[in-house]
Amino acid sequence: MKLSKLAIDLGLEHLGGDISISAVAPVQEAGVEHLSFVTAKKYLSKIENIGALIVPPDLANEAVIESKPRLLSTVPSLDVARAAKLLGQEYLTFSGIHPKACVDQTATIGDGVAIGPGAVIGAGVVVGDNTVIQPGVVIYDRCEIGARCIIKANAVIGGEGFGYELDNCRLESITHFGIVRIADDVHIGSGTAIDRARFGATVVGSGTRIDNMVHIAHNVQIGRSCIIVAQVGISGSCIIEDGVVMAGQVGCVPHITIGAGARIGASTGVISDVPAGITWTGWFGQPHRKAMADVVAVRKLPDFMKKVQAFMKKFEE
Amino acid sequence: MKLSKLAIDLGLEHLGGDISISAVAPVQEAGVEHLSFVTAKKYLSKIENIGALIVPPDLANEAVIESKPRLLSTVPSLDVARAAKLLGQEYLTFSGIHPKACVDQTATIGDGVAIGPGAVIGAGVVVGDNTVIQPGVVIYDRCEIGARCIIKANAVIGGEGFGYELDNCRLESITHFGIVRIADDVHIGSGTAIDRARFGATVVGSGTRIDNMVHIAHNVQIGRSCIIVAQVGISGSCIIEDGVVMAGQVGCVPHITIGAGARIGASTGVISDVPAGITWTGWFGQPHRKAMADVVAVRKLPDFMKKVQAFMKKFEE
Amino acid sequence: MKLSKLAIDLGLEHLGGDISISAVAPVQEAGVEHLSFVTAKKYLSKIENIGALIVPPDLANEAVIESKPRLLSTVPSLDVARAAKLLGQEYLTFSGIHPKACVDQTATIGDGVAIGPGAVIGAGVVVGDNTVIQPGVVIYDRCEIGARCIIKANAVIGGEGFGYELDNCRLESITHFGIVRIADDVHIGSGTAIDRARFGATVVGSGTRIDNMVHIAHNVQIGRSCIIVAQVGISGSCIIEDGVVMAGQVGCVPHITIGAGARIGASTGVISDVPAGITWTGWFGQPHRKAMADVVAVRKLPDFMKKVQAFMKKFEE
Repeated sequence: MKLSKLAIDLGLEHLGGDISISAVAPVQEAGVEHLSFVTAKKYLSKIENIGALIVPPDLANEAVIESKPRLLSTVPSLDVARAAKLLGQEYLTFSGIHPKACVDQTATIGDGVAIGPGAVIGAGVVVGDNTVIQPGVVIYDRCEIGARCIIKANAVIGGEGFGYELDNCRLESITHFGIVRIADDVHIGSGTAIDRARFGATVVGSGTRIDNMVHIAHNVQIGRSCIIVAQVGISGSCIIEDGVVMAGQVGCVPHITIGAGARIGASTGVISDVPAGITWTGWFGQPHRKAMADVVAVRKLPDFMKKVQAFMKKFEE
Repeated sequence: MKLSKLAIDLGLEHLGGDISISAVAPVQEAGVEHLSFVTAKKYLSKIENIGALIVPPDLANEAVIESKPRLLSTVPSLDVARAAKLLGQEYLTFSGIHPKACVDQTATIGDGVAIGPGAVIGAGVVVGDNTVIQPGVVIYDRCEIGARCIIKANAVIGGEGFGYELDNCRLESITHFGIVRIADDVHIGSGTAIDRARFGATVVGSGTRIDNMVHIAHNVQIGRSCIIVAQVGISGSCIIEDGVVMAGQVGCVPHITIGAGARIGASTGVISDVPAGITWTGWFGQPHRKAMADVVAVRKLPDFMKKVQAFMKKFEE
Repeated sequence: MKLSKLAIDLGLEHLGGDISISAVAPVQEAGVEHLSFVTAKKYLSKIENIGALIVPPDLANEAVIESKPRLLSTVPSLDVARAAKLLGQEYLTFSGIHPKACVDQTATIGDGVAIGPGAVIGAGVVVGDNTVIQPGVVIYDRCEIGARCIIKANAVIGGEGFGYELDNCRLESITHFGIVRIADDVHIGSGTAIDRARFGATVVGSGTRIDNMVHIAHNVQIGRSCIIVAQVGISGSCIIEDGVVMAGQVGCVPHITIGAGARIGASTGVISDVPAGITWTGWFGQPHRKAMADVVAVRKLPDFMKKVQAFMKKFEE
């Protein structure tokens, strides 16, 4: 594709000559037919053999760059990704429904949807336009998936929630009649499982990004633009408001609410509601500053105890 | 199905008229052709448009209910689930062996077993009657699965245990000749992995319920009617006795025993045997009451240290 | 197979008579046509009905053994495993590319590779000789897998890394152009996910063993002969040097280095670089001895506080 065509499609200003671009490549690997990007002066020494560059406006007129065909962008790392897409640089590309997928005939599949081999789509499922469902993904009956979602390999959407009642000393399963409803532009990681609701829906809001091996239990409500890192576990009926960030391996007990924009540190055990906007950490979660003060105090504790015991002994003598 | 037929099949007392029921639905969504259930007076205001109800005996003669066709049950949430099953409300329903499953011809598959697309059943595997093996489940050679089990999507039963010996500075795998033996009425969550034993069997007792993404290592012995919540990890050769409850993200070091009926709090690290019947918590697990006392003390520690230091300074002057 | 043939193939000394061996079996289950092994005197009472044994040299002339056909080995548990392989005792055995696998025609598949049903191999993937790819494994485009690797059921190799940038208040995905490069003799557990690099490669060194449900983020560099136990999570760009052992459920924040031969205790939160050779533990990781001293001190803290408060009260009166 011509660089000039890419410039138009990306809506970026084009300086220097026009060349044919075969692919996007990192600075370290790029050659004369590649488009790459640079965001800091220190990388300018490495661009000699690169065909074209995406650069921020403040680098656009550096001497070494002036000889290059180049596009100006305020977000080079994103525009390079968009360029890659336009150039067809995709992974595990497939289009339409793969013959080794298994899609129920009552499912409603949007335009431009790609469903990989081994994926299973249940009865009455709705999948929005341009969503990608990767290999081995299982989506249970009646779940709703928005547009432009990416559901990565071996994720499971809509499995039965984990709930039991004792009946005559036997554990009886509580049937979960509900579904999972995924809004637009959601990404869901490999091996992640989102259970369906007892009634109604387990919900993931638009633009939210979920990493690998995250467990989301029945009836959880997750807001928009949240970031949920790998191996997080969210128990039943939790409410995660918009813009929450949960670092890796966080666990939440059932029925708690995490306020909008809160940030939960890695491996935190969330055992109570979390106020909006706060940073929260600790094995037994609390405000970050307090949790760190406790950690520091505990590390001093063995020495402190010795000192105090010596003091008390002296004064009691 | 007629409500009167459901009453007979469920063994419940039937009051009021008889109507045709198309499906079970939650109170919020139920209409004239639905069966729903109510367990508390506060929900009675919402039942006006609902065809029929399952109610506990103490609500059966409330004024607003007396106009409704109704079934009496001491466990409405369970009987509504049983009704749903009778009405054919299932998820990812399939019967028999799906043509996209892969079942070894030497496996023994019971009556009424359903095996989903993409499932793989190895040589010599035995699957009991009416067990459901969902899509993408892999069961290795010679494993034994009981009757009425549910193994959810992408679970892996009988993979090789994780064990190595050093031989001339190289890690050599220890071959695991054993199997996994799952008793009757066991549920196993999505993405859960249960490794086969070195010799003999890794065992899960009857009626035990295992949530998503649980790791159960080689030679673990799990008793009957245990509840093991998502993302728990149980190391090799642990013994989990009957009726143990393990909350989410618990981890157990190898070779420990958790006594019957013990309850392990979320994210607890179990690093020693746990007595029967006790509640056990803590990053470094101990009895719950003691663990909570420690947490409270640590939260007071920074202030306490300041106070004691001021005191000591004053008295040393 | 004749025991004498096994002795030659395994390079072991053969004492006693020659018999035909049908299979390897544990002492508890072995019969006259089996080969088993014993490593301690206490098991000698159980060998009466066993056809042949592998024993360490110091047991070779015990009275009860002298009547048995036997092979001498300094590592009986490994040689019994090797014997099992020679006898064809494998699990989920398949050879070549299973017709229910999905291998891109541009992938390069080595000699003796076995790819199970439901596995998906992307464009340009390279798989080394004698590697086993089990059912449901997904390997994304251009990833490189070494020789003699075992990738267990439902693992995902080369999924897109988890990285986002804010663009006009929307989360935009950062495209990951890189790959995953797995060296020779690596084992990867069921459900484990290894994400591809932003540029270049996420790397796993030769001989490293990774257990089930481990999350390895983009650009992580893992050395040779590491042992990474189940449910560990390693964040982006971490460096794990040769011979590191990480116990179950360990978590690492991004961009840290764990030095060669370090041992990380179960559930440790690694939030800083770890020196080579050290043992490291704690919710907030630190040297093991210090972490344990802190645990002991905290357990004494509630009583200590009471004592000190009583002391201060007495002296202030």
